[in-house]
Amino acid sequence: MFFQLYWQYFFAGLILWVVIKIVFNFKKNRFSDDKKERYEQLEGEFELKGYREIQPALPKDLKHVLLNWTKIPIEESLNRSKEFYKIMAKRRTVRHFSKEDVPKEIIENIIRTAGTSPSGAHTEPWTFVVIHNNKKKQKIREIIEEEEEINYKKRMGTTWTTDLQPLRTNWIKEYITDAPYLILVFKQTYSSKSDGSKKLHYYNDQSISIATGILLAAIQIAGLVTLTSTPLNCGPALRNLLRRPKSEKLVFLLPVGYPAKDCSVPNLYRKPLDDIMVEF
Amino acid sequence: MFFQLYWQYFFAGLILWVVIKIVFNFKKNRFSDDKKERYEQLEGEFELKGYREIQPALPKDLKHVLLNWTKIPIEESLNRSKEFYKIMAKRRTVRHFSKEDVPKEIIENIIRTAGTSPSGAHTEPWTFVVIHNNKKKQKIREIIEEEEEINYKKRMGTTWTTDLQPLRTNWIKEYITDAPYLILVFKQTYSSKSDGSKKLHYYNDQSISIATGILLAAIQIAGLVTLTSTPLNCGPALRNLLRRPKSEKLVFLLPVGYPAKDCSVPNLYRKPLDDIMVEF
Repeated sequence: MFFQLYWQYFFAGLILWVVIKIVFNFKKNRFSDDKKERYEQLEGEFELKGYREIQPALPKDLKHVLLNWTKIPIEESLNRSKEFYKIMAKRRTVRHFSKEDVPKEIIENIIRTAGTSPSGAHTEPWTFVVIHNNKKKQKIREIIEEEEEINYKKRMGTTWTTDLQPLRTNWIKEYITDAPYLILVFKQTYSSKSDGSKKLHYYNDQSISIATGILLAAIQIAGLVTLTSTPLNCGPALRNLLRRPKSEKLVFLLPVGYPAKDCSVPNLYRKPLDDIMVEF
Repeated sequence: MFFQLYWQYFFAGLILWVVIKIVFNFKKNRFSDDKKERYEQLEGEFELKGYREIQPALPKDLKHVLLNWTKIPIEESLNRSKEFYKIMAKRRTVRHFSKEDVPKEIIENIIRTAGTSPSGAHTEPWTFVVIHNNKKKQKIREIIEEEEEINYKKRMGTTWTTDLQPLRTNWIKEYITDAPYLILVFKQTYSSKSDGSKKLHYYNDQSISIATGILLAAIQIAGLVTLTSTPLNCGPALRNLLRRPKSEKLVFLLPVGYPAKDCSVPNLYRKPLDDIMVEF
């Protein structure tokens, strides 16, 4: 039989193939750091594969108009930038909330402000889910505490939990039911165009966090406090609870309100300007 | 010889191994969406592998102090949140800059403000590289235009370039040399502790974009304009030019200054509150 006569060649061929596979895999992991970085940056592009529609996300005949802008005198520019710094420098991450309610109009203004953020190709890939209902807050707290207990005990590892010790955090999250409002920030990874085709959301990761930065500024300006939390592993359960589509992913959960009377914070300092700014 | 007698068993074993490998790879790709999401969320944890030091990033004996906070009357809260929204709503992404200079003190206040951002385990993983030197700006423009021409012509694909058409962008970036200041935002993926061990920067991706959101707010408050650009593929070249360490990666490049006299912008509208906010 042909196979029995020439089995050595088949065998040698197979071994060669296996060796090539192993060497190739090894090589793939030996990219220089720079090349790796280039490839990571191209990831956004890979997302685009498989989409054929070539109608632009924005209207093709988008008009361009003169920018409506008035120059502020330099002295005022300086003062405003200094005042804004002073207000923002007072911001602290707060983990103990008062149950005192906040007028909904303030929350609406804060969300409106976050909605002014820039986004890749003006896709505005954000949904802010605002929770005021106590039963919903209780349910959210149960989902998060259940996952967080597993996170702290099993998933996070000693390094991480050790790093968090000085902040005195754990898996008990009273702030979720104490704070009058929760804002859950969902990123939209894609959306649907009017003709039913998919609209891609370029740089949605960066866009959602930039919008959250502006949200944090708005909360601080309004005299409220918050905690920038990133619930680990609770995304799908919370998405189902809040009936958000699969195209959306939970990125941040912010309790918003007033601090508890005896609220304490870790005695942290921020890096001075010289440590964060480099000049050329 | 042993091998010649029993080659069939070796051969069968090898084939079995190859089949198992193929089936296993196939299975790995068949995770349900929810499971995929859970795994993606755990990525942060995977980064931690290989690090053994278990000293916390923050001092172990970090003191906790009473929060220094004064309540603002509700009426004022409402007014402030409305005023801040009005100012931020005027923000537009600007692509045509005047060459008029800006006092450095304003730029410093803006960076200081960005430095008040929250970050995972208070790691403050940011370096803001500020460029005022014209030769440096010219060199940066050359590096970016060279890469961007390849991006537009080869890498980005028809969908992406079609989506960008209404914004009238291309690979010529005059704003890089026109604007008096460039702020290059680098994220620090890790840093070194005083004892030489590595300090992990949890959630550095989210932290850097949140800080950039607060940077954008500070630029707008100061009466200046900017463009939130994400130079594709230029990170390593610009990092080398600006002598930043390998632990840092370029995320954003923001030209900052005044708009050109005849500056035009696309006639875009933002989503109304009902489209971005969901209530429970």
